[in-house]
Amino acid sequence: MQPIGYVRSPYTDTKEIPKGFGAKHEAEGALEIREEFAAGLQDIEGFSHLFVIWVFDRSEGFSLVGTPPIDNRPHGVFATRSPRRPNPIGLTVVELLTREGGKLRVRGIDMLDGTPILDIKPYLTSIPPERLRRGWLEEVEGRAAGGKETSEM
Amino acid sequence: MQPIGYVRSPYTDTKEIPKGFGAKHEAEGALEIREEFAAGLQDIEGFSHLFVIWVFDRSEGFSLVGTPPIDNRPHGVFATRSPRRPNPIGLTVVELLTREGGKLRVRGIDMLDGTPILDIKPYLTSIPPERLRRGWLEEVEGRAAGGKETSEM
Repeated sequence: MQPIGYVRSPYTDTKEIPKGFGAKHEAEGALEIREEFAAGLQDIEGFSHLFVIWVFDRSEGFSLVGTPPIDNRPHGVFATRSPRRPNPIGLTVVELLTREGGKLRVRGIDMLDGTPILDIKPYLTSIPPERLRRGWLEEVEGRAAGGKETSEM
Repeated sequence: MQPIGYVRSPYTDTKEIPKGFGAKHEAEGALEIREEFAAGLQDIEGFSHLFVIWVFDRSEGFSLVGTPPIDNRPHGVFATRSPRRPNPIGLTVVELLTREGGKLRVRGIDMLDGTPILDIKPYLTSIPPERLRRGWLEEVEGRAAGGKETSEM
């Protein structure tokens, strides 16, 4: 495995990255692809959204079970987006704004500046939202919504 | 990078995997997670769909530009799902059917039997289909639809 390029992001510390409910990943940044791989971007500008597969290069070790920042209950690492994974691989869907040679300007960055990129793939189809179940996240959202309602009453 | 488990698939040769238009990936199979990592699956059964990140372990080398089986024009590797990538990483969205300990029965397998799995993540949100542009794939589909119309007239 070798980086095909690096993320340019406004974030230099994980504390700056929006987390929790309603966290919007609207940050703009760039995917800078190394010159030797830039030919592989041919025709990518036709796709509105891309999968970016990257490395949590500033994460150390892993925990099989952990409590995410937005919950107070532990969950298995494969049921979360925790960086502390057996293989420290991240996955982000970004919106492609423009391409300038080997540089892709994108929206939806949630990686740190300098993050190594392993792969980019076109985002082709979506699972219809009505078919999605989102496990513990839905429960947490339900609790949060309930709390909000109560606090507003 | 180390496998967290292996895919059990009905496919033992890439020729058996449906490709091209209207290719349905409805094949059922399993993700067998190694015993030492199975604790990381806690609460995963609440999610209907999962991202599986895996290795094209029977692919050799890479081509930055190639012609996909469903087109007659070349495209950059990052605008395709070609196995011949700089980092031979595959990404598949599967539907989770049931979990039996460290074994996840899933639908939507498009990997070969024995494929090493690097990571599993919950599929949380979808890009609305009306916001998706699918580049050269839409063009090919358009040509195919046109051809079909003609042949039916």
